[in-house]
Amino acid sequence: MDADRIIDIMLAADPLCDLPRTGWLLRGIAAPESLAAHSWGVAMVAMLLADQLRDNGRTVDVDRVLRMALIHDIAEARTGDIPMPNKTPAVSDAMHQLESRIVDELLPANYASLWAEAEAADSLEARIVKAADKIQMMIKVLVYERQRGANLDEFWRNPGNFRHMDLDEARALYDAIRARAGRSADPV
Amino acid sequence: MDADRIIDIMLAADPLCDLPRTGWLLRGIAAPESLAAHSWGVAMVAMLLADQLRDNGRTVDVDRVLRMALIHDIAEARTGDIPMPNKTPAVSDAMHQLESRIVDELLPANYASLWAEAEAADSLEARIVKAADKIQMMIKVLVYERQRGANLDEFWRNPGNFRHMDLDEARALYDAIRARAGRSADPV
Amino acid sequence: MDADRIIDIMLAADPLCDLPRTGWLLRGIAAPESLAAHSWGVAMVAMLLADQLRDNGRTVDVDRVLRMALIHDIAEARTGDIPMPNKTPAVSDAMHQLESRIVDELLPANYASLWAEAEAADSLEARIVKAADKIQMMIKVLVYERQRGANLDEFWRNPGNFRHMDLDEARALYDAIRARAGRSADPV
Amino acid sequence: MDADRIIDIMLAADPLCDLPRTGWLLRGIAAPESLAAHSWGVAMVAMLLADQLRDNGRTVDVDRVLRMALIHDIAEARTGDIPMPNKTPAVSDAMHQLESRIVDELLPANYASLWAEAEAADSLEARIVKAADKIQMMIKVLVYERQRGANLDEFWRNPGNFRHMDLDEARALYDAIRARAGRSADPV
Amino acid sequence: MDADRIIDIMLAADPLCDLPRTGWLLRGIAAPESLAAHSWGVAMVAMLLADQLRDNGRTVDVDRVLRMALIHDIAEARTGDIPMPNKTPAVSDAMHQLESRIVDELLPANYASLWAEAEAADSLEARIVKAADKIQMMIKVLVYERQRGANLDEFWRNPGNFRHMDLDEARALYDAIRARAGRSADPV
Amino acid sequence: MDADRIIDIMLAADPLCDLPRTGWLLRGIAAPESLAAHSWGVAMVAMLLADQLRDNGRTVDVDRVLRMALIHDIAEARTGDIPMPNKTPAVSDAMHQLESRIVDELLPANYASLWAEAEAADSLEARIVKAADKIQMMIKVLVYERQRGANLDEFWRNPGNFRHMDLDEARALYDAIRARAGRSADPV
Repeated sequence: MDADRIIDIMLAADPLCDLPRTGWLLRGIAAPESLAAHSWGVAMVAMLLADQLRDNGRTVDVDRVLRMALIHDIAEARTGDIPMPNKTPAVSDAMHQLESRIVDELLPANYASLWAEAEAADSLEARIVKAADKIQMMIKVLVYERQRGANLDEFWRNPGNFRHMDLDEARALYDAIRARAGRSADPV
Repeated sequence: MDADRIIDIMLAADPLCDLPRTGWLLRGIAAPESLAAHSWGVAMVAMLLADQLRDNGRTVDVDRVLRMALIHDIAEARTGDIPMPNKTPAVSDAMHQLESRIVDELLPANYASLWAEAEAADSLEARIVKAADKIQMMIKVLVYERQRGANLDEFWRNPGNFRHMDLDEARALYDAIRARAGRSADPV
Repeated sequence: MDADRIIDIMLAADPLCDLPRTGWLLRGIAAPESLAAHSWGVAMVAMLLADQLRDNGRTVDVDRVLRMALIHDIAEARTGDIPMPNKTPAVSDAMHQLESRIVDELLPANYASLWAEAEAADSLEARIVKAADKIQMMIKVLVYERQRGANLDEFWRNPGNFRHMDLDEARALYDAIRARAGRSADPV
Repeated sequence: MDADRIIDIMLAADPLCDLPRTGWLLRGIAAPESLAAHSWGVAMVAMLLADQLRDNGRTVDVDRVLRMALIHDIAEARTGDIPMPNKTPAVSDAMHQLESRIVDELLPANYASLWAEAEAADSLEARIVKAADKIQMMIKVLVYERQRGANLDEFWRNPGNFRHMDLDEARALYDAIRARAGRSADPV
Repeated sequence: MDADRIIDIMLAADPLCDLPRTGWLLRGIAAPESLAAHSWGVAMVAMLLADQLRDNGRTVDVDRVLRMALIHDIAEARTGDIPMPNKTPAVSDAMHQLESRIVDELLPANYASLWAEAEAADSLEARIVKAADKIQMMIKVLVYERQRGANLDEFWRNPGNFRHMDLDEARALYDAIRARAGRSADPV
Repeated sequence: MDADRIIDIMLAADPLCDLPRTGWLLRGIAAPESLAAHSWGVAMVAMLLADQLRDNGRTVDVDRVLRMALIHDIAEARTGDIPMPNKTPAVSDAMHQLESRIVDELLPANYASLWAEAEAADSLEARIVKAADKIQMMIKVLVYERQRGANLDEFWRNPGNFRHMDLDEARALYDAIRARAGRSADPV
């Protein structure tokens, strides 16, 4: 990897700074966070969550957690952002194939395999990133409801938004988020 | 179809007003046209193109042309907008299935079958809409290059952007657009 | 009408994609729909409303309805958008003269006469468009109140916003819109 | 005038902060200056120009100049902004009547008469404001051409944009602006 | 001061038109007023407040009030806008030194000394501007709470936001603003 | 650190998603990257640069690099963003004190000490972050010049924008960035 390769990666990933998260636009949030800002937020939550797991005695490779968080949405710099509830299995599969190809083209092999690990969501590190992806989103729901007078009820009712990946620390975070919103602990 | 159904359709389609066209965002066009504005533009071009065909002696059902143009992107109110060059056949197929389902849910059957006709692109009316979809885009390329100092070379080099659906009138429009941009008539 | 004339029309009308509806800005709605998005919405409502009338046994030329809806605000691509409550009769008259002139310059005669028909609001088709213009607006009031925490009371109190053009189907739509908002059926 | 009247004036004028200058939007300038920012810019230019006249020995009531500059567009908080080239005499007259009425309603009499003085453009102070209105605009043309890659040729070709109100200092400013843009001193 | 100096000042100050007020962004207000729009608003309030003082028998040099209001934030065209609660004394001092230097470079001496007078806040004229700076802000709080569903409680709880500079007219304005918001007259 | 502390951190840092980089706004870039997007970009560049150093045989703690990159601008969630050329030593010192205090309040001690390490810029890991901060910026200059027709000459002329922290890999990156822009390798 030389200087030119690094510049190519950053130029290819650059649209993440301009692309708004589609999910917020669909609910009328004006000028919402970009995909790049989301990726930063996921990396932040993943770091804090991973450190909590460590504090609780788990062995976590935080370096790998952070790398996965930073690049987990990088293919969207080419495809844009398709909101989750609309991803049928067939769309998810086809998009996953397409994104794999884009990632293989965009990133050197070691990064591409980290992206694949994050998608597979098997390793502890990948599960932390998967959970952080939704925790960041639900904290953003808190923010937009308070600041913008937004009506985001449907986010609280969708169990898929409370993806905890069997991590107690993630479960506790969703409970705390619901408590801040004055919402019942049971999403059903 | 009663009043409530009409309101439901308009509420479901409303995100088209807030969703920017992903393709422009990917090239750094700030605050670009929305999907609703694009749909209006396609309907305008389709009307003008259909009338040209009529003037040239073809029989065209313009009512159907306009209906198809207005609703051709309505499923994107749920899925967001995936830019064309990234649609692999598998993604296109899966997205088409998903969009069909969304359209069947969103619209009464007579409109849903118009959407399907537009997708199939067989009838003369559907071909007019398909061509108008790209003609509107290339006119927008003209506009953004002049107004914003945008660098949209790749649009001119992509033959897929000059989709004429075997309509001479569409071919002539692309020639005229290229001439306005001072670009050679041959996209290759 | 040749290819160049079509491009000229689309370039002249293009500002509709960038011009926000002034009425929303006056109430602090950030990044509201553009005039082009509004024109699309009016065409959608007009299509659905016209089809309702047809279902109820009326004869409607929907082709003409849609053409009028698409171009009814085209002169605003040159003049910008003056919000209704401020249009004194003198302003309305002077603006109508100015807009007529712009439309005559912008559009071939057959389209210009459709624009004039829409303005005159005598034919059934034109009345459908006139009603749809306000129905689309009141549905947007619903949307902005729910999504943005906007305070749009004054829209509900203004009887001019419930322009039904003596169409029962339009009256029913306003009733249904008010019901969605939990507002009394009587605007006074 | 009591505290409540002051608040009423500021609330009524507040939309100037959210309304973009229509003229820039028509040329595709994304997120351009607001009417309030324009009013600030005109007041700044008017202050600097008035002080130049004073330095050159003219007697100028700068207090009155600044008041007129601050409120010269206040009626647009209700009507929105109609770009100049489209104001036919009939539209200008009707709009002037409407704006007079709005100003009389919005502002106490002493301010309303200053607004009328600015419109009449007879007094030296009003002429300074009228010239500053265009000088601020042409400086903004300089800025947008440099920063945004905007194509604003038509502004340089329109003699009406170089309104000097027979003030030598205004003439010199237009010459200097043209020189900065590398444009010939003769707009014709 | 010649034409070129005036253009230099306006070009240097121009970023005020594009810079949003940081304080609003920190609370999630999308697309808030610019610094230039704020400067216009402060000049408006200062004019109205100064005239009230005059009506009440005080001698006020309104010309100087307006000049100070127009340029009071001009250094922020270079530094950006640091929100008040974060300005420690050390930051305020260092920023004041920096801004003084910028103002001396940006503006001829007579204007620079007006800026310094406004900063010192000793003269009656400067106190009017200082009070107007906060009055404009609190009226904007009113507007954003009503229009955007914003949650701006912290503004009402911060006594520093009710800076009256020992002017009874300013005190009355804050009382009237609180009354409009249905807030108790006591900020504590 | 419990769930509530994590939420508090994310809520406190959230304004980074809404705050645009002041430096771009000062040059008229409409809707530029947010501070959060910038932080993501710096973390990406820091990761790629650190891996290059590793490839070249250096020992780098990438985990610490990424943590520092993610939080290096977190205090700006409270203070906003002051563009570099305007930071006099006194302002830098006072801002550093203020930011230290904010970071101590916002973040647990282990993160706060990482922030301090990044500021001190002594360790290899901190130097990587410091270099990445400017490399990300200069790549963004490339992007905005190409996409927006922006005029960003002054960035290329400022040697402070090519901060390499004595890392050969950073020097090579700046050379490659200049080459992409067709700029001479010597910034003087």
